[in-house]
Parts: sequence; structure tokens; C-alpha cells
Amino acid sequence: MNKEELKIYEVVFECDGSATGKMRSELDVRMVKPLKESFVLATDEGKFHGGDGTAPPPLALFIAGLVGCVMTQTRAFARRMNVQIKDLKVSARVEWEARQYGIEPYETAPKSFQVDVDIDSESAIGDVKKLVEVAKKACFIEATLSQSNEIRHRLRNGGGDWVDL
Amino acid sequence: MNKEELKIYEVVFECDGSATGKMRSELDVRMVKPLKESFVLATDEGKFHGGDGTAPPPLALFIAGLVGCVMTQTRAFARRMNVQIKDLKVSARVEWEARQYGIEPYETAPKSFQVDVDIDSESAIGDVKKLVEVAKKACFIEATLSQSNEIRHRLRNGGGDWVDL
Repeated sequence: MNKEELKIYEVVFECDGSATGKMRSELDVRMVKPLKESFVLATDEGKFHGGDGTAPPPLALFIAGLVGCVMTQTRAFARRMNVQIKDLKVSARVEWEARQYGIEPYETAPKSFQVDVDIDSESAIGDVKKLVEVAKKACFIEATLSQSNEIRHRLRNGGGDWVDL
Repeated sequence: MNKEELKIYEVVFECDGSATGKMRSELDVRMVKPLKESFVLATDEGKFHGGDGTAPPPLALFIAGLVGCVMTQTRAFARRMNVQIKDLKVSARVEWEARQYGIEPYETAPKSFQVDVDIDSESAIGDVKKLVEVAKKACFIEATLSQSNEIRHRLRNGGGDWVDL
């Protein structure tokens, strides 16, 4: 039995997207917990996907969020674990595959995720490794990708009632 | 046996992040396949997390990418499936939890994902439902979140050799 006190922190984000332009989405993002803050973002698609290229595509925001999250946690825990960091670069590569039989709608699946952490530190290599292991487990996006998540969907049409899908 | 021809499309994104400021990350994002394009993004954290608030936090980009991806696919397949859309709004709410025993580093896990699709369409409701079901399966980010993904990590320190973690 763990006699240490368990603390639970909740983190909640919400996003409202509106369709404007051919493929552009205006995205109002709110951090709801632990603090209330709001952010304005947008996505679009390039011409080959029917858009006007006025903003990055959704997958650009997705991979940028992943890399940014690893970088935040690595720096946050470096302070707490007393690991010195002179410089930090993180690179990621994500491969997806879309499969289409004949003219059926395609279905997609991720194929591979690679995250490279490039640190310049004079701390012992064992401490640097431990830092990255801790940052992985603390990274909200890595934790999310590492498990199978159920996404609940609701639909409404023309301002009627919401129905579960 | 499926006699239809199977086509496979690859989609690959890469991102290089550099640490600048206390928590700011400059993020060069590249679409590598199907086309080559590049995008400049950044993340930061608010003061409570040790940052300067110069850019949205990583989780804001993450949820914006999710909503943008559902919105792209809904519009892309509306055309192909001949479902008319007068207006489209998509909202999402994602809840995470970080657990910490005593002074141990915290570990995080997602708690719930909700995606609400608000359509204004005069097409039959059955066709609208089918459209959203197809868009879910075609959405790269939803497909990624719905399965458990292995993320490979490498680390190097001071420009030495890469080691697998």
C-alpha cells in the first residue's frame, strides 16, 4: 500500500470550430482547467485537398502539439529533477496510411511514431535518460496516443436535438 | 474475397522543435507525403507552468488539430457522398488527469473525449449520419486516438550517438 498522499490534477480543453471558406476551420480553443485561458487557431487544407492553404492543415497542429508537449515536460521536470539542460531539440515523424477499396470511402490508421530527443547536458547520462522517461509519462499527448481511447460523438441537424452516434 | 482494387495512400509529417525562452518551442513542421509543404508553428506555456504565454500551449494545438481534422473530412466526404452542407460546426471537449503520489513525478492519462457535430443540411438524416460515420473513420487523428500506439524514442546528449530508449 502506498502511504504517500495521492494528488489528482484535472486538465480540460474545449474547442469550437466553424467552417469558413472551402476547407478552412476557425477554431476557438479554451483551457477550462486548471486555469481559464483562450486561444484562436485555424486550419485549412492545400489545393490538392480542396482548400485554399490559408492556415496549416490539422495534422501539422497535431504533430506540433506532440513535439511541444514533450519539450514542455522535459524542461519542467529538468528543474524538478535537477538535470541541467543547455539546449534541447525534439524531432518527430508520424506516418499514416489511408486504405481504400475501389471507390469506397477510405479508412485511415497510423503506421509509426518516432520521437527523437536531442539534449545538450553536462548531467550524468543516467540522469538525462531518467528525465526523458519521466517526461514521456508526464506528456499528456504521449499518454493519450499510448492507449486506445473511446471518442463519444453526438450529431444534430438544423438546430434539432443532439443524438448519440 | 474483395475483388475491388486496394489503394494505399501514405501521409507523413515531420516536426523539428527548438527550445527558446523558458517554455517556448519553435516548431518547423513539414508535410513529407503526399506533397511537400512546410509550416511554422510555436507553443508556449502560461506563467503558472513557468512560461511566458507567447503562443498557445501544446494541448490547444492538439484539440484544434482534432476538430480541424473532423471538419476537413466531413466536408471532403460530403462532396463525394452528395450530402449537402449549409453550415458546419464541430466542438470537442477533452479531459485529462495527472496523478501524483507524494513528491513523485506525475503521470497523466486521458479521461474522456467528446466530439459534437452540428450540421445544417437538408439532406436525409440517414445520409447525414452516414457522412459523419465515414468522416470519423477517415479522420487521421480520430483513427490515431482510437488505437493504442507505440511511440519509439531515441536520445542523444551533446551531439553523441543516438540511443534507443
